[in-house]
Amino acid sequence: MNQKNNRRNFVKTAATGVIASLSIPSIITSAFAGERSKKTILSQDDVVLFQGDSITDWGRDHNKNIANDFGTLGSGYVLLTASSLLREYAAKNLKIYNKGISGNKVFQLSDRWDTDALTIKPNVLSIMIGVNDYWHTITSGYKGTLDVYRDDYRKLLDRTQKALPGVKFIIGEPFAMKGVKAVDDTWYPAFDGYRKVSRETAAEFGATFIPYQSVMDEALKLAPANYWSLDGVHPSAAGAALMAYAWQNAVKG
Amino acid sequence: MNQKNNRRNFVKTAATGVIASLSIPSIITSAFAGERSKKTILSQDDVVLFQGDSITDWGRDHNKNIANDFGTLGSGYVLLTASSLLREYAAKNLKIYNKGISGNKVFQLSDRWDTDALTIKPNVLSIMIGVNDYWHTITSGYKGTLDVYRDDYRKLLDRTQKALPGVKFIIGEPFAMKGVKAVDDTWYPAFDGYRKVSRETAAEFGATFIPYQSVMDEALKLAPANYWSLDGVHPSAAGAALMAYAWQNAVKG
Repeated sequence: MNQKNNRRNFVKTAATGVIASLSIPSIITSAFAGERSKKTILSQDDVVLFQGDSITDWGRDHNKNIANDFGTLGSGYVLLTASSLLREYAAKNLKIYNKGISGNKVFQLSDRWDTDALTIKPNVLSIMIGVNDYWHTITSGYKGTLDVYRDDYRKLLDRTQKALPGVKFIIGEPFAMKGVKAVDDTWYPAFDGYRKVSRETAAEFGATFIPYQSVMDEALKLAPANYWSLDGVHPSAAGAALMAYAWQNAVKG
Repeated sequence: MNQKNNRRNFVKTAATGVIASLSIPSIITSAFAGERSKKTILSQDDVVLFQGDSITDWGRDHNKNIANDFGTLGSGYVLLTASSLLREYAAKNLKIYNKGISGNKVFQLSDRWDTDALTIKPNVLSIMIGVNDYWHTITSGYKGTLDVYRDDYRKLLDRTQKALPGVKFIIGEPFAMKGVKAVDDTWYPAFDGYRKVSRETAAEFGATFIPYQSVMDEALKLAPANYWSLDGVHPSAAGAALMAYAWQNAVKG
């Protein structure tokens, strides 16, 4: 289905009047409705670290280590989230870092964890990882299984809790938008396992969980998948803004 | 005053409890309190164009002409504003462009207006221009006066209204943060004239006016000037997010 057809179908749907009653806050409310995880409280002088893959990285400058900086935050959902946090919680003196690296799977976070997480001593650690743990098995011959993802993720968080007692975890659900470029029926049900593991791991470690897949699924009521996603995996500007909105809904000052 | 001292003074202020009662919405409400201009209504299928100088440009790809695109939106306040609009008004099918160019003064917008504004046929045209019209007189020997700024701005808007009847203007006030790097007492009262002209020009053309200077002045109640601005002229990530918030307050769906 190309963009034009998608748009046409969407407009047709809109014409039924279903859309008119929906808005972004209601989408977020619906997406979070089933969640039991608590919101993360942002405190004075908190150091907030975003970790993950290309969705997190998004063009950030890897050669600098400055908090709250346009270059080091990149220009994806982390910039959108961080700049909103810095605006909304201006009096809290937050220091926000982005250390995502494109293509990363959970074992690659482990490999660089001392430098890119533990030495930063975050009070709040937001991790979104997993789509490549699945995707690369079908595109790059990666041999890691779902069990590897689960075990590596658990070890990573366990190691982090031991090094940084009291650290608050925010775990983002890996998501995909079926029907957009890279993502087709062959992803399912295998990919859903990674979503499930991220949710279970979040619960196991008392993390705040952000159900990005539910958020994106709800967003389809407002606009088609290729409005929110560039290729099924990477969000558009609209999708990144929606992620940032969901992230902010998972915290409070 | 260096950043450390600024922070210390700020924390001292915060300790008095004055800060606790303030929040971003109240800042925006206060900043807009005296404004008489109407909000701009965003309609279905609107084309929204952002025009201006480096604050608008902010690393955008000048070689592409794609709406709603991470590369062409840059990573400054326009990205923050546009992505939020695309999220909040997802069902409106907005097409958002950024054509700001670093260093521009109002006459330089005129020089490229056919290509970079009129051919795009925006329904909503957001312009923020003027800080260089003053700044370059003290740094680069630019000879344009305040009258030149006023006349050129008026001609630009008049030409636009003739070419695009019904276009809705949003005019952003040029602002500066005194005491941060480039901006000192020598800017005043001369620079205030440019702010005044932008406001008067907005009123003359029935534009929605965004009082960015008032917004930034109010924001000083929450954090010091160098929290919001990198050099007195260019906003930090926090400052850009505040601009985006103010912009969104000036429109409705």
